[in-house]
Amino acid sequence: MVGRTLLQQALPITFGLKAAGWLTAIDAAGARLREAVDAALYVQLGGAAGTLASLGDRGIEVAALLAEELGLRMPVMPWHAQRLVLFEVATPFAGAAMVVGKIARDVTLLAQSEVREASEARAPGWGASSTMPHKHNPVSAVAALGCARRVPNLLATLATSGEQEHERAAGAWHAEWETFADLLRLTGSAAVWTRDLLGGLTIDEGRMRTTLDDAGPMLAAEHLAALLAPVLGRLPALEHVRDAVAVAERTARPLVGVVLEHAPTASALSEMGLDAGALARALDPARHLGSADAWITRALSAHEASRARSGRAP
Amino acid sequence: MVGRTLLQQALPITFGLKAAGWLTAIDAAGARLREAVDAALYVQLGGAAGTLASLGDRGIEVAALLAEELGLRMPVMPWHAQRLVLFEVATPFAGAAMVVGKIARDVTLLAQSEVREASEARAPGWGASSTMPHKHNPVSAVAALGCARRVPNLLATLATSGEQEHERAAGAWHAEWETFADLLRLTGSAAVWTRDLLGGLTIDEGRMRTTLDDAGPMLAAEHLAALLAPVLGRLPALEHVRDAVAVAERTARPLVGVVLEHAPTASALSEMGLDAGALARALDPARHLGSADAWITRALSAHEASRARSGRAP
Amino acid sequence: MVGRTLLQQALPITFGLKAAGWLTAIDAAGARLREAVDAALYVQLGGAAGTLASLGDRGIEVAALLAEELGLRMPVMPWHAQRLVLFEVATPFAGAAMVVGKIARDVTLLAQSEVREASEARAPGWGASSTMPHKHNPVSAVAALGCARRVPNLLATLATSGEQEHERAAGAWHAEWETFADLLRLTGSAAVWTRDLLGGLTIDEGRMRTTLDDAGPMLAAEHLAALLAPVLGRLPALEHVRDAVAVAERTARPLVGVVLEHAPTASALSEMGLDAGALARALDPARHLGSADAWITRALSAHEASRARSGRAP
Amino acid sequence: MVGRTLLQQALPITFGLKAAGWLTAIDAAGARLREAVDAALYVQLGGAAGTLASLGDRGIEVAALLAEELGLRMPVMPWHAQRLVLFEVATPFAGAAMVVGKIARDVTLLAQSEVREASEARAPGWGASSTMPHKHNPVSAVAALGCARRVPNLLATLATSGEQEHERAAGAWHAEWETFADLLRLTGSAAVWTRDLLGGLTIDEGRMRTTLDDAGPMLAAEHLAALLAPVLGRLPALEHVRDAVAVAERTARPLVGVVLEHAPTASALSEMGLDAGALARALDPARHLGSADAWITRALSAHEASRARSGRAP
Repeated sequence: MVGRTLLQQALPITFGLKAAGWLTAIDAAGARLREAVDAALYVQLGGAAGTLASLGDRGIEVAALLAEELGLRMPVMPWHAQRLVLFEVATPFAGAAMVVGKIARDVTLLAQSEVREASEARAPGWGASSTMPHKHNPVSAVAALGCARRVPNLLATLATSGEQEHERAAGAWHAEWETFADLLRLTGSAAVWTRDLLGGLTIDEGRMRTTLDDAGPMLAAEHLAALLAPVLGRLPALEHVRDAVAVAERTARPLVGVVLEHAPTASALSEMGLDAGALARALDPARHLGSADAWITRALSAHEASRARSGRAP
Repeated sequence: MVGRTLLQQALPITFGLKAAGWLTAIDAAGARLREAVDAALYVQLGGAAGTLASLGDRGIEVAALLAEELGLRMPVMPWHAQRLVLFEVATPFAGAAMVVGKIARDVTLLAQSEVREASEARAPGWGASSTMPHKHNPVSAVAALGCARRVPNLLATLATSGEQEHERAAGAWHAEWETFADLLRLTGSAAVWTRDLLGGLTIDEGRMRTTLDDAGPMLAAEHLAALLAPVLGRLPALEHVRDAVAVAERTARPLVGVVLEHAPTASALSEMGLDAGALARALDPARHLGSADAWITRALSAHEASRARSGRAP
Repeated sequence: MVGRTLLQQALPITFGLKAAGWLTAIDAAGARLREAVDAALYVQLGGAAGTLASLGDRGIEVAALLAEELGLRMPVMPWHAQRLVLFEVATPFAGAAMVVGKIARDVTLLAQSEVREASEARAPGWGASSTMPHKHNPVSAVAALGCARRVPNLLATLATSGEQEHERAAGAWHAEWETFADLLRLTGSAAVWTRDLLGGLTIDEGRMRTTLDDAGPMLAAEHLAALLAPVLGRLPALEHVRDAVAVAERTARPLVGVVLEHAPTASALSEMGLDAGALARALDPARHLGSADAWITRALSAHEASRARSGRAP
Repeated sequence: MVGRTLLQQALPITFGLKAAGWLTAIDAAGARLREAVDAALYVQLGGAAGTLASLGDRGIEVAALLAEELGLRMPVMPWHAQRLVLFEVATPFAGAAMVVGKIARDVTLLAQSEVREASEARAPGWGASSTMPHKHNPVSAVAALGCARRVPNLLATLATSGEQEHERAAGAWHAEWETFADLLRLTGSAAVWTRDLLGGLTIDEGRMRTTLDDAGPMLAAEHLAALLAPVLGRLPALEHVRDAVAVAERTARPLVGVVLEHAPTASALSEMGLDAGALARALDPARHLGSADAWITRALSAHEASRARSGRAP
């Protein structure tokens, strides 16, 4: 499929590479969330001012027993007015919201009427517009975005609440309660919408190939410049290809034809023994995928290792 | 010293307990920062669209060599459009800004003219007001707060930038550059101001004791209610002490005297064999510190372990 | 051109309607900015604590003279610790950043390789990719977005700074300085990039028409359902058109053909005397533009009135 | 009372001046809110893509009738994807939250056990601590702060949502719904808590005077430097007073005594004919209030004008 940068077609990639990027990010977000559950959930028992004075000299013992009973960790100190502890629990959720927001954004873009390389599952009534019967809205992606976009500023409210006065804060603490719950709820909702989205995602391989073929010769410009570089030098090759692209665009002619007629590139290609057919074959997008497959292999290995570590079936 | 909750005097604590809370939070923030430097600094080399196509089939090899040369980790995948990686580096800084903001806030409150339990170091001209020659401003704390308070919303901008389009974002990526640099710069400045602040902090123990003595009998209410609970029951004890506090406040008399005259508490105290002198001794704030020392011991042990782990001298 | 909702082709609109939306928003943002300059720029002179005591009994007179000299308004009271005044100056800038961000987002979407209905001006070297000579990046739009996206959280920092202690704040005030300057700078930059963007924007009318024609019959579904409603009833008409759309998509046949063969819609159309040709003419997108032109007329009138009010040439 | 800057006692002010600052800010926030209700509440009716095509050529007429029926203004254009309109409604609420947050912050500081210049109304059970029967928490102020502190980042989410795609956004629009409702709800709650707070606020004038008297001589440093300036020059006077303050603090002696013994200041005072008694009278804080009363008069006049404009009883 075509890879897009700054929302412009740029270079050939594979859908596998894009999906591997999603997978690796989900794995990373999941690993951080598990770490947070394992490492950052501390019991809080300090009494009114942190001394546990009302428990005499057995305060720490009681706190430890409470931690054990609740399955929470015992902190070095009470953290009633030290909110880094809460922030450490919240940040992996905000990270997860970033990851699912990126996936949902990609899907809304791939699902655009003019792109149609991916679409959400259709269920009766689902994604249908109430007034436009032809529409097929990417409802899961939109809902995921609607949730995920609210998370960053909730995290900011928690971070702002770090400045708590003395042994218990007047206001900052109270600002955290609903905010923290909202942050968990919205991240969870965004994740569920994204799970539904990915579970029912339809990929249109034919459409991806058509987009690539339509864009192909233009997309091959980097590839062509790389081919010509050994003969023409890297910068002159880039310059000549840029000129040829301009001619091809202005005259609506294929790039291959233009470079075979443009004197400097034509002589270089002739020196390299490349005629029109050989050049077209050399410029096949499938020959310009670089490390795409190797990255995917890395992503899948890492994913299996991650599942094994977390004790889940692969 | 007196512990304060909701900006009201609440219960006796020790300054050591407060400082141990700061220390534990600094240790936690420092540990997370070191983890981030160790674990989250990944090389980014993916070429224009993540395939490294211009490097033929040696892209991953080149990326790994670049990582090695720069002392960075090799990621599973390029992360040009997956910004969790950047967020993971930024969050420990935001956490550190929370921690130093809390310390600076406590110091500005302790340094209030009406409290004066702590003050910043005085150097000639430093903290002097340009128009009010008597003032001694807590300039390091104020500067630390001025920096630290800007960090949460910079983090929110980075988290919002997670939603990046396809293989390279149109705008979200560009919004990160100055934001990330500002976040590091402001956290660093806040930390340096806080180091200066703590390095020169003067603690006025006498003043702390005076505040405690002035507040003493009122502050002892929880302690008193706990003393009376075995005889009167927990809730009635609380109720009776609350009434006695009201009487003591209205009549500006010492709480001890009031409870020795108030029938139900007087009879309970008599049953317990506590006269005025014994009651006053029993209510000494230093006898109502609960686990304060034990928490401090935990904080110091954890701090030494943390320094040992990070290879620094204790 | 095609109108798009949730990034799906929805209904025909005109580019004029879209541009009129931009214009109206720019006018509104500009009017608010002028209001802010006229109404919200107040002098601040209160001395150290707001009394102007060092000026004896002539403080207010001096403040008024200073305001006059600086061309600022005289406030009811000094506002050193009342930051609504600053917030009122900042919000119109944040509103302007929203408006230019929306325009820049629309342009990046219209400029997508798969859409190509608009593109930025080309100047030599401008928007060229360093490695992909065929690319034509929407650099002004991307730069505008990169600036505009940072503004909301700077505004949040200013709003958070409203909670200032007593007569002069310890930290909150200091957090405002660079933040306010950054907010003005980034909004200004976003606006300049957007001016360049709009000044050089090329609209491809032919491409817009092609998109509309390709999408036409599907896009006409609302129109068709509206045509059939008087005979079939509103909801049944919608239901039948939805079915016909599904058939047309599955079989890749024109919608008009499908509804002329589908029994219930065919009989309704026959009752209405609409054969294939008449139906196709009835469904011409140019006949389903509703109030588009009337809205544009309103926008242009309001714009001229706005320019007249602000004393600028129309 | 004493005025405080950077949480340090600075100069004498009056409580009236502080309250006038609150009043002026409330008036300004209220005026902006009324403006927003009058000027920014626009009907939104544009149909699916802004054309109102389903209403034929009567769309604008219908929109105008709907606006009339709902008591809303008719916009120049539909604003479904132009969110400045929503932001304009939200910002006065965020401004109001800033204003009440500042008041609540001042009250929590004035209500500190060590300050006690103001306290909230006491009702049975209200503000009582569940475990510390002597405490009298500033619950209304704390609740107001807990609400008001969440508003700035909700506003940031709305501002971030300005970047909406084409004719209806995929995600940004959906992120606004709960956010906008929360922003209104929390501002309203913060305002109600602040109304309760101010309605029941007890001011302890005697305590204010005591604080002032205790701080008096030190607080008079600016005043003293101003007195000496005509004889000694402005900067030398400041320098000498700063030295005298240092001596007075170190030796715990009254400032007046110190300056009467310190050669340069003593000779200046003698030249001015000021002995100890005359100096003490000259330095009475009530003689160093500058324009405090004049500011209050301005605030009250502006308040009455504001009430008259808004048609409310004064």
